[in-house]
Parts: sequence; structure tokens; C-alpha cells
Amino acid sequence: MSERTAHGTLPQPLGGEPAARVLVAGATGLTGALAARLVWRHLRLELVAATSRSSAGVRLDALYPQHRVPIELSAPDAVDLDAIDAALVALPHAAAAPLVAELRMHAIRVVDLSADFRLRDLDSYERWYGEHGAPELLDDAVYGLTELARERVAGADLVANPGCYPTAALLALAPLAEAGFLGEVVIDAKSGVSGAGRGGFDFAEVSENFKPYKVEGHRHTPEIEQELRALGGGGTVTFVPHLLPIDQGLLASCYVTPAHETDARELRSLYGERYASEPFVDLVDAPPGVRDVRDTNVARVHVAHDESSSRLLTFCAIDNLWKGASGQAVQNLNLMLGLEETEGLA
Amino acid sequence: MSERTAHGTLPQPLGGEPAARVLVAGATGLTGALAARLVWRHLRLELVAATSRSSAGVRLDALYPQHRVPIELSAPDAVDLDAIDAALVALPHAAAAPLVAELRMHAIRVVDLSADFRLRDLDSYERWYGEHGAPELLDDAVYGLTELARERVAGADLVANPGCYPTAALLALAPLAEAGFLGEVVIDAKSGVSGAGRGGFDFAEVSENFKPYKVEGHRHTPEIEQELRALGGGGTVTFVPHLLPIDQGLLASCYVTPAHETDARELRSLYGERYASEPFVDLVDAPPGVRDVRDTNVARVHVAHDESSSRLLTFCAIDNLWKGASGQAVQNLNLMLGLEETEGLA
Amino acid sequence: MSERTAHGTLPQPLGGEPAARVLVAGATGLTGALAARLVWRHLRLELVAATSRSSAGVRLDALYPQHRVPIELSAPDAVDLDAIDAALVALPHAAAAPLVAELRMHAIRVVDLSADFRLRDLDSYERWYGEHGAPELLDDAVYGLTELARERVAGADLVANPGCYPTAALLALAPLAEAGFLGEVVIDAKSGVSGAGRGGFDFAEVSENFKPYKVEGHRHTPEIEQELRALGGGGTVTFVPHLLPIDQGLLASCYVTPAHETDARELRSLYGERYASEPFVDLVDAPPGVRDVRDTNVARVHVAHDESSSRLLTFCAIDNLWKGASGQAVQNLNLMLGLEETEGLA
Amino acid sequence: MSERTAHGTLPQPLGGEPAARVLVAGATGLTGALAARLVWRHLRLELVAATSRSSAGVRLDALYPQHRVPIELSAPDAVDLDAIDAALVALPHAAAAPLVAELRMHAIRVVDLSADFRLRDLDSYERWYGEHGAPELLDDAVYGLTELARERVAGADLVANPGCYPTAALLALAPLAEAGFLGEVVIDAKSGVSGAGRGGFDFAEVSENFKPYKVEGHRHTPEIEQELRALGGGGTVTFVPHLLPIDQGLLASCYVTPAHETDARELRSLYGERYASEPFVDLVDAPPGVRDVRDTNVARVHVAHDESSSRLLTFCAIDNLWKGASGQAVQNLNLMLGLEETEGLA
Repeated sequence: MSERTAHGTLPQPLGGEPAARVLVAGATGLTGALAARLVWRHLRLELVAATSRSSAGVRLDALYPQHRVPIELSAPDAVDLDAIDAALVALPHAAAAPLVAELRMHAIRVVDLSADFRLRDLDSYERWYGEHGAPELLDDAVYGLTELARERVAGADLVANPGCYPTAALLALAPLAEAGFLGEVVIDAKSGVSGAGRGGFDFAEVSENFKPYKVEGHRHTPEIEQELRALGGGGTVTFVPHLLPIDQGLLASCYVTPAHETDARELRSLYGERYASEPFVDLVDAPPGVRDVRDTNVARVHVAHDESSSRLLTFCAIDNLWKGASGQAVQNLNLMLGLEETEGLA
Repeated sequence: MSERTAHGTLPQPLGGEPAARVLVAGATGLTGALAARLVWRHLRLELVAATSRSSAGVRLDALYPQHRVPIELSAPDAVDLDAIDAALVALPHAAAAPLVAELRMHAIRVVDLSADFRLRDLDSYERWYGEHGAPELLDDAVYGLTELARERVAGADLVANPGCYPTAALLALAPLAEAGFLGEVVIDAKSGVSGAGRGGFDFAEVSENFKPYKVEGHRHTPEIEQELRALGGGGTVTFVPHLLPIDQGLLASCYVTPAHETDARELRSLYGERYASEPFVDLVDAPPGVRDVRDTNVARVHVAHDESSSRLLTFCAIDNLWKGASGQAVQNLNLMLGLEETEGLA
Repeated sequence: MSERTAHGTLPQPLGGEPAARVLVAGATGLTGALAARLVWRHLRLELVAATSRSSAGVRLDALYPQHRVPIELSAPDAVDLDAIDAALVALPHAAAAPLVAELRMHAIRVVDLSADFRLRDLDSYERWYGEHGAPELLDDAVYGLTELARERVAGADLVANPGCYPTAALLALAPLAEAGFLGEVVIDAKSGVSGAGRGGFDFAEVSENFKPYKVEGHRHTPEIEQELRALGGGGTVTFVPHLLPIDQGLLASCYVTPAHETDARELRSLYGERYASEPFVDLVDAPPGVRDVRDTNVARVHVAHDESSSRLLTFCAIDNLWKGASGQAVQNLNLMLGLEETEGLA
Repeated sequence: MSERTAHGTLPQPLGGEPAARVLVAGATGLTGALAARLVWRHLRLELVAATSRSSAGVRLDALYPQHRVPIELSAPDAVDLDAIDAALVALPHAAAAPLVAELRMHAIRVVDLSADFRLRDLDSYERWYGEHGAPELLDDAVYGLTELARERVAGADLVANPGCYPTAALLALAPLAEAGFLGEVVIDAKSGVSGAGRGGFDFAEVSENFKPYKVEGHRHTPEIEQELRALGGGGTVTFVPHLLPIDQGLLASCYVTPAHETDARELRSLYGERYASEPFVDLVDAPPGVRDVRDTNVARVHVAHDESSSRLLTFCAIDNLWKGASGQAVQNLNLMLGLEETEGLA
């Protein structure tokens, strides 16, 4: 572990043993860097190493000054896996699976932020992502949308952290799916550019712009369908993503033709009960904005009834990097380690 | 009319009589100011007066330097209506109708940018906007979505210029409605803040933000439904607007459950034929972005077929101030005056 | 103090007595709300009350969801001052002084974020701000630019927290002033809109815009001059602020005609030594951007030598709400209470 | 020349012979594309060809839909130079000079938007840009800051179009330089990203950011110094550029230690007289914002006197793509062709 510099007088564990020694693999991407920051600041976790193939030897705070993590990045093969209890893997799709397999061989608990273990059906995975690097682990993996799988996550050794769009869409739709209300579903989703990783977008293409993309098929669609089916839902799903001219923030607007008649009061009651004790879901009376959840692990959910069309409208705003990626990963890791779910995420 | 200053050496009519002497009423709002600019720069129109209740005596270029219109604003009652051939009325809803009535008494041709003459049904108007100031004119008014009503506009004395959201939604949906394909419709629309007029939004509420608003009913919904019915369309409409953290630009994303089966090829052919000769509709192969139409009168339309759900997806991007307001108003005025539809809008 | 809700399971003090029971006065403004958040999350401080004249009874997280502080705002006169050890006062200029006087009567330690105790010269204060509400306290107040007054702050009962522009300008210039290098100084400064408080700016006036303001005199000028003189500096100061089309972030670009000749090497050594052990000043090799310090208490400083003109160039980037206001206030409070300076600010 | 499509019914020359047949070389960059648009819409010019090495055969409106120029791009060697009267050359530095030489061999009038003919001193050019491709033409070139060289431009065959930063800085400073007031000069300049050409900046690096760059030497500095000396000015110049998180817009803030004493009244009178009859310079009473000049060829200039320091403050806002590049190029071309200076730029 890197030495603390002058700047390293920033707080870390206040005495006592850490609950786990943690590796972050792939710390130069946006989600990996944020994962490293969250572990670094977490009072019960120790950030043992953060790896990078391209930037080994560079300090993470040279790449991400805002995160204030003064640790030197390690080459992937320079990490002693026997000194690791848990890992957050933030590698690209396909690159993650072999590392996850190796980590599991060392009995290291893993939250994988890639798509490699999200789809339970191998054929579906291979249609969207190509050959799978560790199909033998698919059955072990728990799909970690925390609020929908808290107990399974707590007992898991390998958690597939959900995609950012599925996180928002599923939190918006889960109460309807669970209650059997789900008919046809249209999901019109919008994300800031950090949803696409680092270095993806030219300023002149994005600023003052807004547009849909991948309208004829996005690989988050099968992930959403898989989980809705698992919840008991329903009809066909149309999912269209759009690119917002902002950095962080994601909103899913969902339009549901209900399987049964309902009304605004029943809906509010349904959602209110479902999310009453969730620390990271805020059910709000007005349509949620992405700014209200920036740099938080919170999902803000709103539900409405369009009387003239009888459609149900439900909206969910998250920070795509937090609840849509690294924040939820730490939330899951907390559960896997028997810690308070909210630790390090306030 | 105000004298030209040094800066007034900017071009205007190149000799010959203007086709019409034009009044812009309500030139201190965003759409009125743009209307004044378009008339000022139009080679065949003369901007005789631009009125403002609050800023009479002020030069328009002091309020809107970017538009470069060096005309002094007039008090509303200081205009000699006998010297006017045509008017663009950019007053708020309800304030417009009485002025329109007065202008019509003087046989002045009017394009009204307010909502006052958009809804043919008086009850529906009064439910959304309050008492109507000139209901006797409702039957004379032509709903001026140019591409859908070119001939009626050309013969009209009073044109109700469409709302910005209906313009985009209807251009996206019209070919489907006309061909009888329209089943259930979800319209998820997004607009920059200028759609809400001048001075409406605090920077801190909008920047880096994105959110839905008026999800339980927006007054553009009955306008869209009225026109879809007129085109032969169909099922229920759900319309939800969202606020983009940009100034200009509007996108309507439309999700249609088709009345009959169709496929991508038929859709492209349908839209291709419908819009082939439209000067201000660009049918594009990729999803359209609002930046591509900024400061133009162009609508960019894209249509796709979502095979897995059999839904039809259609998108339309416009500049809410141009094709969604003042640009379309001039396009309509051109037609009413027998000019080339595109004049002054290139 | 308000009860914790479900959401209030967010972490606070990990056992042990808090070091101080803290009041935040004026918690509905941007800096007061952030101050409340920082105290709420601080492991050694207890947020006893946050006051608001206009929003008493409202929960702070209803106004600022992103800060996640589930405390109910108190009316100013509903707070039991005997249960308070320290206060962060975030009231407007002139309104702060009387409250500060009252708090001091109860022997409460105060960091005042307003301008009321920044200018040591009463005449100068009254020229820029009007009548002073507690001039008898001026001599007790320590100007709290932490890095320049650490020991005095540690021993103070009343700290005047610096303005955002002076914080950045003084950190950029202090090493030169202390070393006697300071000749004529031009400070061209740029701030995001949150520097002006809540609700100040119309989106349409700020977005895609950039402009100078108050070019003929800003009240931060006498504050900068006072502190430069105290450090031993020098010539005349010209200070011009500009408004950036962003929410948070401030950059001061300083141009100095040196009192003696110097070169790049000497400058780097001077700044390197001066700031080597500062936890919240990063001396950087490349010009600093405001994004790198967003939501941190860090100042990034860069110094260069313009050989052709022999001028010294020095730049400082801060987050105007953190190091420029509430972050520095907590940094000062930590010192006043004998805590580690960096606590609660990582 | 490409055929007009349906969309090509947009207006162009209204009868009569065009004043010149114009080539735009390098039309795929931001300034070349805008130059092509300005020529295309210009009522007295004919856009004969727009060239591109990388995109020959592609229509310009496929790359820049917003400009609405339905012309097919030509390969550079496919243009018949005998059919060309004038050219706007928008190639990168160094690539421009050989083409300019070839065009001049055909007696074609040229406005070169690159830096190749801006610096009169060959050594200085080669220090900043490398070897010069046509040094024999340096003496023929007129530095085309229109307001400072109107008559020379009108008589020139080759105009070196100024850089964007020098345009703003020189318009801000010229009245002082001409009147002998110029002492020491600090220029703190800020530009939107389009100043750096197409595809230059990652959204995540620019949005919500602001920073200085090239603080130890930018190649626009010798250009500014050369022209200030030519006007009779003065002392040393320090020039530091900064990057704004917007697309278009440039502000130069200039700080001058005056050679003689002066006051606000004399300054206003000096600037008022100097710019009174300039069609594209607006002298304004309040500090200018870049938004007010967006998509216009206007420079907004403000001058102030800082009494406490006796410094003169002068500010100039332009659109870097218009007055800072293509707009000024057309302004110059108008003069070279004996047309009204403002034609096509309103």
C-alpha cells in the first residue's frame, strides 16, 4: 500500500481492524476510480491495491485529483492475492470474467461492475457481448440490485453489479412488477456522458445537444427483461437511451400499460410500502431531477397515474456513477461483509 | 419606424416593394424578438413596428444584442394599424385574442403564436387556459403546422401557430396517423429552457440537471390529440415533457403500438415519400440531435422499428424557438402572402 | 434535534463524546446548507440545530436533497444557546454581526462566513457594506485564511471566514508577498454562479455566456489589499471578477510585476517550500482547472515566470463553496476546537 | 457545383451576376465550414467549390447539418482554378502557404485564415510554426484586422486573417495604442472550445471546468505584439489564454498601465470617436458578455478606468468563429471585391 503523503493525513480507519482488505481492479476508468475513492474513505475497509494496466506506477490522484486518493496504481500482476479479502472489479466487459475467475480461486469475494455475470443466459450474453470468459461461474453470481436482492447479495461470493440503466429502470418498475401490474412497458432513459466511460465524447458533439442512440437495440434491454421476468413482470419492453449534455446523472421515464386497473392512491400506497425502509430509495411527490442525486447513492422515485390514458408513469433518477455503478458496488460489498449497508456511502 | 444607425447598414430589402408591411406584437419575449429579427432580415418583408408594453422606447438590440435589430420598440397603442398588412402576435395566452380580434377588424393577416386559436373546442380551451377573448374567431383560424396544412394556411387570414411540443410530436407521428398505423402513443418530449419563455429558470435549478415536469397533464396534450384525430389517428396519447439543461432545442421521442403490422422497410418508405419534397423536414438515417437544428427552421425526423416489441419508434428534433415558434410563423406568413415558403429562413 | 428517519441511518459519530455541539445559522443559503452537511457528516461534531428565518419547520433535505441532512430547520429564536459550543454563521452581510455578538455573549465560538468581521478598518467596512452591527468585536476577530493564520485561528473565539475571491487570490500571492516580491498586481478572477448565492441568476443569462462584472470596484478588493499589506506586500491591486457558466468553481489568475528579479526555478522553490506541508494546498506543475477541486477543500496553485515580460504568473483554483466558504469554515472550526484540521473534509 | 436538392430551394443569389466565384479550401474544419456557409448565403458571392482532403464526395450538410449547405465537397486537386475569382483558405498552419502560393499564381484573391501570413518576421514565424511554405509572399500579405487596416485590405490580393485572440485583444487595445496611452499590458483571455478546432476536447475534461493553458507562451503573443507596435504601442505584453466550458465565444480582458494619466471621461470619448462609425464594433456601457455576440460578426468593447490603481481596463467580446475567423474573412473579402463590408454578415 502506498505511503501517506502530506495530503494523506486525510482520514482513514479510526482504529480497530478493517472488516476487509480490498482490491480495486481497473482503477483508471471512471467507475474504478470512484470505487477506489469510496473504499479509501470507508472507515471499515482498507484499500490494499488499485490496479491499472496502462498507468501502473502513477498515483491515482494525479489522474483524478478530485477523488483525493494518494495511492500508487499497481500493475495487475503485482498484487498479492493472498493479502486480499474482497475485490471490486471495474474492467471492461469480457476482460473482467477471467480475473473474476482467478479471484474466486483465491476465495476472494467479488463485486463485478462489468456485464460479464449479469445475464444468466449464456446465449444471450454471447449475442450481445461475445464469448464468455468464465461461464462456469454464471450460476454462482447474484444479480446485485441491492433493494431487490438484499438477502441473496448478503450470502453471495460473487455479485454481478447491475448496469446503470437497468438500476434506474428496475427501481422504477419493481413495485409494479412484484404486484403483477406490469403490462407493456416503454422505458425512455437519459444519461450523462460518464455513463459511457472516460474519454468517450467530444465536447462539440455533446454540449448544447441531446439525442437518442442505439434505438434499435441496446444491450441493457435483455438485462432489464431478465430481471422484470424474475419479479413476475410482464409484457414487452421497449428501451431507448438518450445522451444528456451533462457529466453525471441518469433518469429513466417508464410508461406502463397496467395489467389491471388501478389509481393514483393505490400506486402511491404500493410504492410507499415497498420503499419505506430503504435507505437509498427516496419516494418523492414531484418528478425527480438528476441534480438532486448527484454524487449520492440515492435513487429518487416518483409514480403517477395518467388518467386520460390509464397508463402508469414512473420515474427514477440516479447518479449513474454511484447508484448506477460504484456506489451500489460498495453497498453490495457492505452486505457481503456483514457491515451496515450504508457505511461509506453517506 | 426607427432610423437606421451606423449599425443599421445591415442589409434589408434590396430594392422593389416589400410584399407586406409587418407588425410584431410582443417583441420583448424570446419568440417575439426572434420573430422581429426574422422579419427584419427578410428581403421581402418590412418590419414596420415591434411593440412592447413594458419596454416601449427601448431599442430591441439593447435587449437582444445578438439579433441585431436596431428598431425602437413601440407602445402597443402607438401603432397605426392602417399602415400594417400582416402581424405576428407573440403575446401570452389570453392576452393575444383581443389584439387578434382588433387586427382582424382592420383586415390584417395574422399569425398568432399564442395558444388562443389552437384548440378548436372552446370547452377544451377554457379548461386549460381560462376564458377565451375572441371565441367568434375560432372557426376562422387555421392550425398552422405548415407541412400538414400548407394549402389551408395559404388561404388563411388567421393562423394559429402550433406549440413547440405539438410541432415536433406531430411531425414525428403524422405519416403514421395519415396511413392509419396509429395505435397507442407515448410521447416522451424534452425541451431546452427557452421553451418556457424569458427569465423563467434559475441557473442553479437547471444546469447539470434534467427532470420531467407536469407529468399529470400538460396543455399541449389536447392540442396533439386534436391534430392526430384530424389526421385519422387513433389510440390514447400519453405526453410527458422534460426540461433539458440547454437553452434551445426540443426532441420528441414517440413510441407507437401500431394498428397493423409493419416493418422497417415499409416505415422508411412511408416517411420517405411523405417528406421527400418538404424543404424544412429532413428525414435522417440516424437518431437526430437537437444541436443539428439549432437556429434553423428544420425538423429532423427518424423512424425505426423495434422488432422485439413490434413497436414503432419515431423521433423529431427541432429548435423550439424556430420551427417550434417564430420560424414556423414566418414560414406560415410567407405562404399567406404568396411568397416562397423558405424565404427569410435559410 | 430532529429524529433520524429511515434515511438517517447514515453514519454520524462513532461513539465517544462529540468535540462540540454546533449550530449552523442561516442554513437555507448555499453556504449554510453545505456547512450543515459538513457538520452533520463530521465524526467529531454534533449538529444541534440549523436555523432559517424563512423555512423553519422544513427539513433541510427537502431543500437540498443532495446533501442528505435529515434535520428540521429551526426558527432562529428557538435555539437554546446554552446547549451550543460553537456556531457557523452563514447569514447575509450586516445580518450576521448582531447574531455573532449574541453568540459571543454566550461564550460560543464563532466562525462567521459573512463579510462583517473581515475588514479591520471600520470606515472601509462602512463604505462597502453600510453600518456595522457590532464594531466592538472587530478587534477580537481573526481573519481566517487558514494557511496564513493557523495559530491565530487556533486561539481565536471569533474567526472571520474569508471571501471566496480573496481566498484564491491570497493563496496564489502569499508566497510572493511574504518574500517581498510583490510589486503591481492584477487579479483576473472567475467564479461559478454559486459564488453569488442561491437563486441569483437566470439560466438564459448565464448559460453559454461569460462576462466580467463590477469592473469598477468589487468589495473583495479592500479585503485582498488589507491581507496583502499584512503579509508585507506591495503595489497597487486591480481586481476584476467574471462570471463563469458553471455552478461551482473559482479561478484567480494573478499577474505580478515583481519587486526584484527572479526566475522560474526560484519561484518553484519558494512556492514548494511554502506549501509543502499544507494538507489543502496542492502545488501543481500544470495550470489548474476548477473541476479538479470541485466538492473538495483543496486549493490548487500554479506559478510561472513569463520570461519575455519578466512578470510572475500565479493561478489558484478552488471550489468557491468549499475552500471559498463552508469548507474553510470547518477547517477553521477544527483548529479552534483542537481537532485535526482535516477532519470531516476528506 | 453540386445540384440543389429539395432542400436546396433555400435562397441564394437573387438574380444578377455574382461579384465573385469563390472557393473555400478546407471546408471540413469549423472555420472552413462556416466560411462555406457564409459564402453560400451571401447574395453577391457564388460558392463554386468547397474542398476537403478527407471527405471529398461527402455533402457538407452531412457533416454540418446546421449550416444547411447542400454542396458536395471536392478533392483539392479537382477544382478548376481558372473558374475561381477568390478563395478563403481554411487549412491548418503550414499547409496553407503552398496552396496560397498556387492560388496567387492564378491571380486569385485570397483571404488566408491560417497563421501563415500573419507574422511579418520570418524568424518569428519559424520559431512558433516551423518552416514557411511561401516566404516570398510575406511582403504582399496585409494583416486583415479590418477595422485597423480597411484601406490596405481593400487594395490587397492576399489578406492574412487575424487569429481569434489577437482580434479581440487588438480591438480592445487599438484606441489606446493609437493615442499613445499604451504602457504595460496584461491580456487575460478566455475562449470557448471551438477556438481549438473540431474534435479537440473531451466533454469530461471541459464541462464544468475552467482553466488557463499555455501560460508560458502562446503563439498569438508575437502576433499581438507585432500589431500593437505597428499602432504605436508600447510596453511589454503578457498574454494568457483560458478555456471556457462553452462552444463559441471569446473574451479578452486587458489591463493597461497607461503611459500618461487619463480618466474615464477621456477614455470613453477616445473609444467613442474611434469606433463610432464601425458597423461591427459596438462600444457598450456595461461589461460585455460573449453570448451577446454569438453567431454574429460583432465585437463588443467596453472601457473603464480603475481609479485606485490608475490602470485602464478594456474588454472585448467576440464570437471566435465569426469575427475571430470566418466572419472577418468574409468582411475582408467584401472589401477586396468592392462590396459593402457588411454584406452577408447581418
